[in-house]
Amino acid sequence: MNEVKVIEIKKSVFEDNNRDADALRRELKERGVYLLNLMSSPGSGKTTTLIRTINLLKDKIRIAVMEADIDSDVDAIKIKEATGIQSIQLHTGGMCHLDAEMTRQGLDNLALEGVDLAILENVGNLVCPAEFDTGAARNAMILSVPEGHDKPLKYPLMFSVCDLVIVNKIDVLPYFDFDMEKCVEYVHMRNPRASIIPICAKTGEGVEKVAEWLLKEVENWKK
Amino acid sequence: MNEVKVIEIKKSVFEDNNRDADALRRELKERGVYLLNLMSSPGSGKTTTLIRTINLLKDKIRIAVMEADIDSDVDAIKIKEATGIQSIQLHTGGMCHLDAEMTRQGLDNLALEGVDLAILENVGNLVCPAEFDTGAARNAMILSVPEGHDKPLKYPLMFSVCDLVIVNKIDVLPYFDFDMEKCVEYVHMRNPRASIIPICAKTGEGVEKVAEWLLKEVENWKK
Repeated sequence: MNEVKVIEIKKSVFEDNNRDADALRRELKERGVYLLNLMSSPGSGKTTTLIRTINLLKDKIRIAVMEADIDSDVDAIKIKEATGIQSIQLHTGGMCHLDAEMTRQGLDNLALEGVDLAILENVGNLVCPAEFDTGAARNAMILSVPEGHDKPLKYPLMFSVCDLVIVNKIDVLPYFDFDMEKCVEYVHMRNPRASIIPICAKTGEGVEKVAEWLLKEVENWKK
Repeated sequence: MNEVKVIEIKKSVFEDNNRDADALRRELKERGVYLLNLMSSPGSGKTTTLIRTINLLKDKIRIAVMEADIDSDVDAIKIKEATGIQSIQLHTGGMCHLDAEMTRQGLDNLALEGVDLAILENVGNLVCPAEFDTGAARNAMILSVPEGHDKPLKYPLMFSVCDLVIVNKIDVLPYFDFDMEKCVEYVHMRNPRASIIPICAKTGEGVEKVAEWLLKEVENWKK
């Protein structure tokens, strides 16, 4: 049960990542596959959030997950065990981000037939992944309460490129100086259209809103 | 009071960073300046930890701080206001790390005469900064409890290159599934010689041990 496919990702040879990303996005649109690129700092709860969200959605749509990590396999195994869906591990070999060509290497190793939603869990990093268009339909990111509400001030690009900001670990709000109003203000300073959904992935609180957001996105993508 | 020098860091032209870092380290050794490179994820508490540590040490040794950030100035201002010591802001202009030449650009803008300890607060990132020797005497990193004890498994290089791992936010241990014993085991798997100091930067608990570690390091550097 706890064995997953592990793909060693090679460095890209394409020079123009933006063009390559647009091409990949068009291909995925034609195949009816919505790709979500999920980013965050290390330890903000990407995998736990995914497990909760997938379990709310897996009877409605078909989902596959690619877990990028520098060299461990724990996340892909966790996803597979907790949700039963198709999950593979991408090893970036020390690389700090994924671009469109690297994402394609992952997609080539997924059984994409019939898949409605493919999720890329990017490398835990608020800087580099924001600079590379992966070809995803949308970018989402998780900011966890212990990281602080000032992160949109310090990592502007990450918040500019994301259409969904999930604020995780709201169960520990009483123990941290996290100001949700300021967080919303700062996120909208970077991207006025961004949706912001506060959740607690550990207890499941609020996760149904993430599932609703995703389901609507996937339905629109297929129109 | 709340104005600090802001340096826009340029991309390095040197090809051999390791050689450049060794040269910088030798120069600093000759000048009697101990350079500490402090790394962590975004929001793990680098600035608060520094303020506490500096306030314990500033009457014993002369300290200067360089705060690297993509484009905000808040950290350098915070350090200056809370400690009164020399503090400058380095803007990396989107770059995800500092190498030796970039560090040198920062040092050139510090009044280093008589300084015993210079601290570089690197960009919040567990991946890229670990790959570039800054010329520091030692690397240290902060892992905060909410990030989880499994981080040495996922970011192996960061933990391999650090001689001091500060485990911050121990006040919230009751609210997170953080296993300190496993944390110590995983850190030592990456670097058996690493010192591990649990602290709470918010309350000051344990910070005196960080100050002691640093003071001993600075004294040895000057021998």
